[in-house]
Amino acid sequence: MNALAGRNALITGGLGFIGSHLARRLVDEGAEVTLVDSLIPEYGGNMFNVAAIADRVHINISDVRDEHGMRYLIQGHDLLFNLAGQTGHLDSMTDPETDLEINCRAQLAILETCRKYNPEIQIVFASTRQIYGRPAYLPVDEKHLVRPVDVNGINKAAGEAYHILYNDVYGIRSCALRLTNTYGPHMRICDARQTFLGIWVRRILEGQPFEVWEGQQLRDFTYVDDAVDAFLAAAQDERANGKTFNLGGTEVISLHDVAELLVKVNGGGSYETKSFPAERKRIDIGDYYSDGAAIKAAIGWEPKVSLEVGLARTLEFYRTNLNRYV
Amino acid sequence: MNALAGRNALITGGLGFIGSHLARRLVDEGAEVTLVDSLIPEYGGNMFNVAAIADRVHINISDVRDEHGMRYLIQGHDLLFNLAGQTGHLDSMTDPETDLEINCRAQLAILETCRKYNPEIQIVFASTRQIYGRPAYLPVDEKHLVRPVDVNGINKAAGEAYHILYNDVYGIRSCALRLTNTYGPHMRICDARQTFLGIWVRRILEGQPFEVWEGQQLRDFTYVDDAVDAFLAAAQDERANGKTFNLGGTEVISLHDVAELLVKVNGGGSYETKSFPAERKRIDIGDYYSDGAAIKAAIGWEPKVSLEVGLARTLEFYRTNLNRYV
Repeated sequence: MNALAGRNALITGGLGFIGSHLARRLVDEGAEVTLVDSLIPEYGGNMFNVAAIADRVHINISDVRDEHGMRYLIQGHDLLFNLAGQTGHLDSMTDPETDLEINCRAQLAILETCRKYNPEIQIVFASTRQIYGRPAYLPVDEKHLVRPVDVNGINKAAGEAYHILYNDVYGIRSCALRLTNTYGPHMRICDARQTFLGIWVRRILEGQPFEVWEGQQLRDFTYVDDAVDAFLAAAQDERANGKTFNLGGTEVISLHDVAELLVKVNGGGSYETKSFPAERKRIDIGDYYSDGAAIKAAIGWEPKVSLEVGLARTLEFYRTNLNRYV
Repeated sequence: MNALAGRNALITGGLGFIGSHLARRLVDEGAEVTLVDSLIPEYGGNMFNVAAIADRVHINISDVRDEHGMRYLIQGHDLLFNLAGQTGHLDSMTDPETDLEINCRAQLAILETCRKYNPEIQIVFASTRQIYGRPAYLPVDEKHLVRPVDVNGINKAAGEAYHILYNDVYGIRSCALRLTNTYGPHMRICDARQTFLGIWVRRILEGQPFEVWEGQQLRDFTYVDDAVDAFLAAAQDERANGKTFNLGGTEVISLHDVAELLVKVNGGGSYETKSFPAERKRIDIGDYYSDGAAIKAAIGWEPKVSLEVGLARTLEFYRTNLNRYV
């Protein structure tokens, strides 16, 4: 019998990219799953993401900023996968207050609610490599200073720190995973808010050239199934609590080579190299890739799906479902 | 002629401990000074702090959370000394939302206002060594990871990061000083919200024993005049912009030895050693002292007033003015 069977899990951002995959895995393992999502158009929520499991999950359309609603929803749950967030880097600069409301204030309110009404809950928080800013060295491990280059990075760092603090001070079991570029089916492809790969995939499937911005920057990528494995492992291993871990990818690759790989896996396509847009350049982080040794040593997780395999699965999904995501 | 003469300076928290000393120095240098303070009883503001310069400064009683008021006040100023904050560590745990409102949201709003209405302003932000949490090594330099042990530390870290970000991305000239235990005349002495030294001073002057909590922890102290020198130096030296600097003290000393020194300087007095209160222990940081080499190398500041001299001046002030601060 699976350790997740019969357990009550709440996923914030549950209709989103990663949240929806996590939901599917949890119901397959026999968990009772409730999804909270506000379906803000610019974010990742999409009802189609859970179409295949809609009769096996509880869907609650609400916003994590709604403290009263969250107070009710958090009670009675064993597990909280806390994935809701504002993720747009540029959006955080044009509307910093909204980013603060979602990524700071709502997180603090969720933790206060857990402390008061459900202190036995186990939380896994979705953080981001964005908090490191421009790397001082590579690969970036968890000892790297947090030096965000945008408001989103600052607020996500605070949100993460609240989770670790509530673990350490109040014993609300929490850990944080610092995600790098995560990709796969269900990701947002209508714009670059979640990942530039989304737009690339859409354009190539539409038979259009996609844009590569001065493509020599190095990056790493995590396929969404690997990321889900990490969330599930972290939720079930006490050694994770109080810790922040990088999630890394299977390989380090330049944006140019990702573009070439995408064309190859797709069996055709083209791209144009463009200069970096000015408003993005000033919050860009240059080369980045994660050192994932700490999470492997602590709880045994490591990514398994190569970028080539992951891109093939991603293209296959969107080839059939493109009209659901544009 | 002094470089500060005729310049328009705004000090948030200007009726507080450090802010009021900064105000006196600025008016002595010929600056036009406006003080913003909300006089929240639990914080540091006290009209008596500026009694001697009341006819030489503009006093505006308002709260940095009042975005509309701040929008007016920030315009037309050359310098912003941004000292307003919630400083209580325990208060930040019992009321985390208020701490977030003051130390995060108001700071972001101030910076947005500067960006939109006064991008030429020069800002110096008062940060704190509290953001480091329990030191991983000593002395703590600016390369030390930020690992706050309370909500106040997390929010102050975010407030500091916003300032550096707005410098780097928008060219709003800003720097941050991470203060360690600052002490001297005008500090709060009715409770331990600003510094435990305040309560010690009050008790010893009232002829009562003061409480030392398991006194072997190491600390460093900055006398307020030295801290003011640092703010003025940072505001006038372009090399500070975009940087965060530790302010350290002239010496490293155990709490027990501080207690002994206070009794000696006072010419009498006594203290009782008590065990650490449980609610403080879980957010305590153990030994702490700063490495102040970076600011000395960058802009030449270093502390000058020894703890013995600083305590003597402090006792002398409160001996005359005790009833103004209880």
